[in-house]
Amino acid sequence: MKESLQDYVLREATPDDIEQVLHLMREMAEFEQLVDQFHADAHALNAHLFGPQPSAHCLVMTHRNAPQALVGYTMWFHNYSSFLAKRGLYLEDIYIVPAHRRKGLGRHVLQYLAAKAIALDCGRFEWVVLDWNQDAIDFYTQLGATVLDEWRTVRLSGDALRQLAHP
Amino acid sequence: MKESLQDYVLREATPDDIEQVLHLMREMAEFEQLVDQFHADAHALNAHLFGPQPSAHCLVMTHRNAPQALVGYTMWFHNYSSFLAKRGLYLEDIYIVPAHRRKGLGRHVLQYLAAKAIALDCGRFEWVVLDWNQDAIDFYTQLGATVLDEWRTVRLSGDALRQLAHP
Repeated sequence: MKESLQDYVLREATPDDIEQVLHLMREMAEFEQLVDQFHADAHALNAHLFGPQPSAHCLVMTHRNAPQALVGYTMWFHNYSSFLAKRGLYLEDIYIVPAHRRKGLGRHVLQYLAAKAIALDCGRFEWVVLDWNQDAIDFYTQLGATVLDEWRTVRLSGDALRQLAHP
Repeated sequence: MKESLQDYVLREATPDDIEQVLHLMREMAEFEQLVDQFHADAHALNAHLFGPQPSAHCLVMTHRNAPQALVGYTMWFHNYSSFLAKRGLYLEDIYIVPAHRRKGLGRHVLQYLAAKAIALDCGRFEWVVLDWNQDAIDFYTQLGATVLDEWRTVRLSGDALRQLAHP
């Protein structure tokens, strides 16, 4: 049976989804070869997504025939542009399990978040991509997004961060 | 007279600083060749920095001999890492006027923000740099930061964002 976009549901995550979201996050970390940077746990995620001042927001995707099983998730938060003097919408994660790809679900999620960005008066909708993930770059470009080739992310973490903070 | 780091004050911005911060922001936009993306105004900045739920935080630098004149500013906000399940500290802007550079002020500000990141239990301290700004890259690297060469920022804004949201 051919799946169509109407077979899927996109909804806000609830605390009951967290264990499955963590499972999907770990799958994504494996794909991105970033398992060494994966330290999320349910307690912290619950506090950050569902506490009084959320640090991030999570949506999940299910198939109508198996509404208990997540087929994907996305997480976003507000960044800020000083030059625009506007909040932005920053996509931290989007992940869809392999069996449910190429059915329009990724595009649907990005359209939903683009509409949310407009509704929340965000100046920009941004995320990052690995430069070797050409399938993703092509997909994003087809949606009208621009890859900012000139900019590089700079990061301090772990020992280097502690060393600068308290030499 | 040679200036030393003890001649400078780093403090939280107040609404009285906003006009000067805007002036410095525009100078930075000119240096970065991004004046076309500069649309900030005092009303919006005031609301976002000093409203009930700030979207960003601003610090300013002055010289002890002329405490009314800002010699620099920095702006930061919290981003979020799903993999770490921790907030991060994201440096949106750091700018020091040319006459007060090479006195250790930039390093002092980054050390201050690194200590703040640790105090706020942030997993990472991050920012972006233009790939042609080798002086900045060398400076950040000397502080222990890593340039993430593999990652590219992807952006939707303006007409492209509206088009995806409401085709």
